[in-house]
Amino acid sequence: MQVLVYGSGQLARMMYLAGAPLSIEVKAVDVSTKAVVHPISKAVLNNDLEQSIAAADVLTVEFEHVPEDLLAQASASGKLAPNMPAILIGADRVREKALLDKLEIANCTYEVITDVKQLEGITSRLGERIIFKASRDGYDGYGQWRAKSASDIPELVRQFVELDLQTVPIVAERMSDFSRELSLIGARNGSGEVVVYPLSENTHYEGQLHLSVAPAPDYTDELANQALTIFTKIANELDYIGVLAVELFQEGDTLLVNELAPRVHNSGHWSMHGAHTCQFENHLRAVCNLPLGSTHPRTVSAMVNIIGCDELGDAPLQMSDTHVHWYGKAVRAKRKMGHINVNADSYAELGQKLLGLNSQFPVEYFPELGPQAELLLSK
Amino acid sequence: MQVLVYGSGQLARMMYLAGAPLSIEVKAVDVSTKAVVHPISKAVLNNDLEQSIAAADVLTVEFEHVPEDLLAQASASGKLAPNMPAILIGADRVREKALLDKLEIANCTYEVITDVKQLEGITSRLGERIIFKASRDGYDGYGQWRAKSASDIPELVRQFVELDLQTVPIVAERMSDFSRELSLIGARNGSGEVVVYPLSENTHYEGQLHLSVAPAPDYTDELANQALTIFTKIANELDYIGVLAVELFQEGDTLLVNELAPRVHNSGHWSMHGAHTCQFENHLRAVCNLPLGSTHPRTVSAMVNIIGCDELGDAPLQMSDTHVHWYGKAVRAKRKMGHINVNADSYAELGQKLLGLNSQFPVEYFPELGPQAELLLSK
Repeated sequence: MQVLVYGSGQLARMMYLAGAPLSIEVKAVDVSTKAVVHPISKAVLNNDLEQSIAAADVLTVEFEHVPEDLLAQASASGKLAPNMPAILIGADRVREKALLDKLEIANCTYEVITDVKQLEGITSRLGERIIFKASRDGYDGYGQWRAKSASDIPELVRQFVELDLQTVPIVAERMSDFSRELSLIGARNGSGEVVVYPLSENTHYEGQLHLSVAPAPDYTDELANQALTIFTKIANELDYIGVLAVELFQEGDTLLVNELAPRVHNSGHWSMHGAHTCQFENHLRAVCNLPLGSTHPRTVSAMVNIIGCDELGDAPLQMSDTHVHWYGKAVRAKRKMGHINVNADSYAELGQKLLGLNSQFPVEYFPELGPQAELLLSK
Repeated sequence: MQVLVYGSGQLARMMYLAGAPLSIEVKAVDVSTKAVVHPISKAVLNNDLEQSIAAADVLTVEFEHVPEDLLAQASASGKLAPNMPAILIGADRVREKALLDKLEIANCTYEVITDVKQLEGITSRLGERIIFKASRDGYDGYGQWRAKSASDIPELVRQFVELDLQTVPIVAERMSDFSRELSLIGARNGSGEVVVYPLSENTHYEGQLHLSVAPAPDYTDELANQALTIFTKIANELDYIGVLAVELFQEGDTLLVNELAPRVHNSGHWSMHGAHTCQFENHLRAVCNLPLGSTHPRTVSAMVNIIGCDELGDAPLQMSDTHVHWYGKAVRAKRKMGHINVNADSYAELGQKLLGLNSQFPVEYFPELGPQAELLLSK
């Protein structure tokens, strides 16, 4: 089986590693050069994309911001999974919001801003605290603006006047008073089979995911059922094939959908060592229409992102059931360089292990590690 | 870190997969062509072996039968681990026996046959049941002969007369009345740190390993200590760096060493999903002088070899915590094509899962699966 992945970053890399044992050969498309590259070495394997498309059994994506002409070419082959409309929904908050409304899935109240005039009186409609998100091409906190009170609006008007809101509208959302951020990763294959992983609890810092804990602590069946219902509604509606990530806010006992990602997701990396089948393998199984693998958690797990830092010393190698994964990238500020998966038999033990790492790690790169570890001690 | 592995089979392949997350790039030497190849795709990366030796940080082996001129060249670089004498001991039963005797490690009584005349009266010295093993280049039952009684000896004399016993002596061993075959996989790094995995119990069929169960059932501390002592004596004596496999016979409460393999070993593949750190990662950690990883078993595990068969259907994909690994080889009779790791919470559950696979698999390729599964049910 040959799978061609659009995008040649760490997600394609981890698909390659998960595919090899299953005799699934994964190659990656560098979408800037259109060259087909080896997902690990990045060596160019073929400069003729059409030829590689013809040779592949399945085409898929590692990110939703693939240029639309490339997506259209991929889709025309009849081999693209998930399908192009599903990918575009993940790439466009306006389409995403329309889907959620159509399916009557709870999400934060919003307005689509195509003209700065719409900012007039917006706080009376959405509340004082509003988050503005570019509808396309935003990620990791880029393309986002916040209003903490009505007095912030005039400055935003000045900024938005410079933007082409007709081409890239902004979605203005009531800022959620969530108690925590969760995500649900699941997969659906061509036979309509659906599996979901346990919810993970995610900690962000300056717009980037820093830590995921799975299964999320204090995780009721009721919460799990809500999440499963949301996932199944969306995946069935889109005739979705592959892994789909649903980012959620928990407000009281209710889950609101924040964002969809039509792909494997950073908050699912814990599954590489913490679940019976990892998200990368399940994505490949889904797009190759193989039976989906068990998503059962082995233990409790934390995934710690390594961001902007390329040297951690031996601490994670010396800790039991702790797995470092470097992505082989040159270091840059705010760049995701790798992650560490830590498994433990209880949340308290997990907290202890994270505290152990925290005591060895440079705090500037891991500002949330200590505080989150402390919280786990009492779970 | 760059590691060059002599040998380009499945063991180098699995080292590559284990190395990538640690930023250890593994390349393989096809010892027949001397080309450096990608361990997964087998694409030639470099035809200049000397250049690749110079570029590598560490050289290692995936099998002990590397041509001696290549080993000498590798050793001369000062980067080879394990060291050449240790590799040669694994490749030569005469040296291996001498080492065991020197270290006073129990093994089967033997004689080194360099002249057929030595077969005269041999059954009066070693007993009626004798196994004769070529001292070099034998594997998977090749280069072995058995005598079940003194009356078999004349036929063996006729066969051995044709061989150059001066160049490749035969080791004649009393055939052990072992209750079972076990193996101990462990690692030692350059700092002298030693870790060992739990003993695995191995089932062979026609000279090939078919099944390993780890930890071995009915596994006493006393047995574990014996095994650890044996491992540590050998590894320290050889100043061994890397993973070393010790094949053992259990006779009553005593362990006898059958063979040494100076490398990762088929009976350790269960560790890929059944232990905190797999043998391939620990081999790389050892040769790169990193701290060794925890060898703690997650659950109980079985490794089922896929031999001579390239199609198994969906059964292993549909079973929880069951992992298929294909080696990407063209099918041939008796060829190891891949393996399946099965994890379970108890031996009885493991037996049930293996019975489940057995009911779906072609019995001609898995003759030991059903009987061994039945035995596990009562453990």
